[in-house]
Amino acid sequence: MLSEQTAGDAPDISVSTTRLALGVAYSGQAYEGWQSQPHGRTVQDRLELALAAFVGTPVRTVCAGRTDTGVHACNQVVHLDAPVHREPFSWVRGTNRYLDADIAVQWCKPMGADFHARNSARSRRYCYVLLESAVRPALEAGRCGWVFRPLDGQAMREAAALVVGEHDFSAFRAAQCQAHSPVKHLRVVHITQHGQYWRFEFEANAFLHHMVRNLMGCLVAVGTGQYPPTWLAQVLASRSREQAAPTFSASGLYFLGPQYDAHLDIPTRTPAMDWLP
Amino acid sequence: MLSEQTAGDAPDISVSTTRLALGVAYSGQAYEGWQSQPHGRTVQDRLELALAAFVGTPVRTVCAGRTDTGVHACNQVVHLDAPVHREPFSWVRGTNRYLDADIAVQWCKPMGADFHARNSARSRRYCYVLLESAVRPALEAGRCGWVFRPLDGQAMREAAALVVGEHDFSAFRAAQCQAHSPVKHLRVVHITQHGQYWRFEFEANAFLHHMVRNLMGCLVAVGTGQYPPTWLAQVLASRSREQAAPTFSASGLYFLGPQYDAHLDIPTRTPAMDWLP
Repeated sequence: MLSEQTAGDAPDISVSTTRLALGVAYSGQAYEGWQSQPHGRTVQDRLELALAAFVGTPVRTVCAGRTDTGVHACNQVVHLDAPVHREPFSWVRGTNRYLDADIAVQWCKPMGADFHARNSARSRRYCYVLLESAVRPALEAGRCGWVFRPLDGQAMREAAALVVGEHDFSAFRAAQCQAHSPVKHLRVVHITQHGQYWRFEFEANAFLHHMVRNLMGCLVAVGTGQYPPTWLAQVLASRSREQAAPTFSASGLYFLGPQYDAHLDIPTRTPAMDWLP
Repeated sequence: MLSEQTAGDAPDISVSTTRLALGVAYSGQAYEGWQSQPHGRTVQDRLELALAAFVGTPVRTVCAGRTDTGVHACNQVVHLDAPVHREPFSWVRGTNRYLDADIAVQWCKPMGADFHARNSARSRRYCYVLLESAVRPALEAGRCGWVFRPLDGQAMREAAALVVGEHDFSAFRAAQCQAHSPVKHLRVVHITQHGQYWRFEFEANAFLHHMVRNLMGCLVAVGTGQYPPTWLAQVLASRSREQAAPTFSASGLYFLGPQYDAHLDIPTRTPAMDWLP
């Protein structure tokens, strides 16, 4: 039921396109975020150019979660309507041939026509990696946030517990946020320490623009003793961006990826990178 | 007993310099290796320029182990003779102010005049990080090697055991190697698997130029079944570079650092980076 009509071949009576889901990993350091821009160096532009180079015709993609400048992704999921038929792994290998080293399609899966990378997603997961050290990072530059003051994990966990749940997150919302509603369900904030590194995991049905980085700014303000944990409840209740701490650096932010209904069987990449020296 | 004579102050009768050891971390991706070059973009050049900018007078450094283009360092140790007196942490903070984000001095320690970063080192440790995946890396680009064929860990460990010990490593030596002798004592090759990632740790009294990358090429050739483990003993015995596999990529190579006599109390950084998503 596949056609290569749009690639220039003779029309096929049984014309239909196949909706594909792709998993994409990228380092955000060199890019102005996900979203295509007229003269921007964005991940979406690079991906769509690579897809077009592979199949010989323009391809548009829709992603599960737009990432900002400098933000990384482990398993960004996009969908597209394939203008030509190729085997799933050919989409991976063929597209990667035209992508720079810091972006790569990791998997490809044919989906039903009603699959939508953004609308079908039940939740999103982000991770923030933070180095606590008197000295700034070097080997990890652009790949972790940095705080030179010691952090109080218990205080941060107490503060985080006060914002978990369904709330109006206007206090943590960027002015340019395009979401319909500031009410989101923050399901999980999980804070762990690994030597000099702290790892903050966030899961919500959806996130407002800069929400994770604004929450991080506040959690670090609590962790360094600038405010008590209960301050975060006050900030949340104020619904005022001016009450919250400054937006934290993008460097340590990783979009782990969206989660879908289990029956869709969308791959979740688990690059548990406990591998670096 | 310190003088700022060379910084332009009046001479001090009790003139002497303090030998300092510095620990330096860097990502090698953007640099043509450690060693200073006339028109090169090297780590040593950047470090010495930053030190000179900090103290206002030229500073020369000697390192424990030169790294190649693209090779990273967790704890490169250098020594220098301080032309001015500054507190140890001022050397760290002051120098880092003039360094790019991908290089940073991590610690500074005053040493005896006979300390020599290279000659005092008892051994060096390297780590190679290798991704085993059908798909190339993206988030980890430049930070790990890549092999798309499955690796046989047992075969690689058997092969590695055959080269551990004191041997003539001419078969794994680059043509441009400047070492006095090809005989080195390879004390440890430790191979572990972490999900899709393999980690190869090497410890030797010293390494020949490209020795780790040439050993890696051979271990991967054994791991993918191209040769049996015993082949590595034949390559070693041949003492011929032509018998060994091609030099493996620099991307996954990390200089973990030198080791000194315990009484010198030189910091060993342990950035166990089990922190990335």
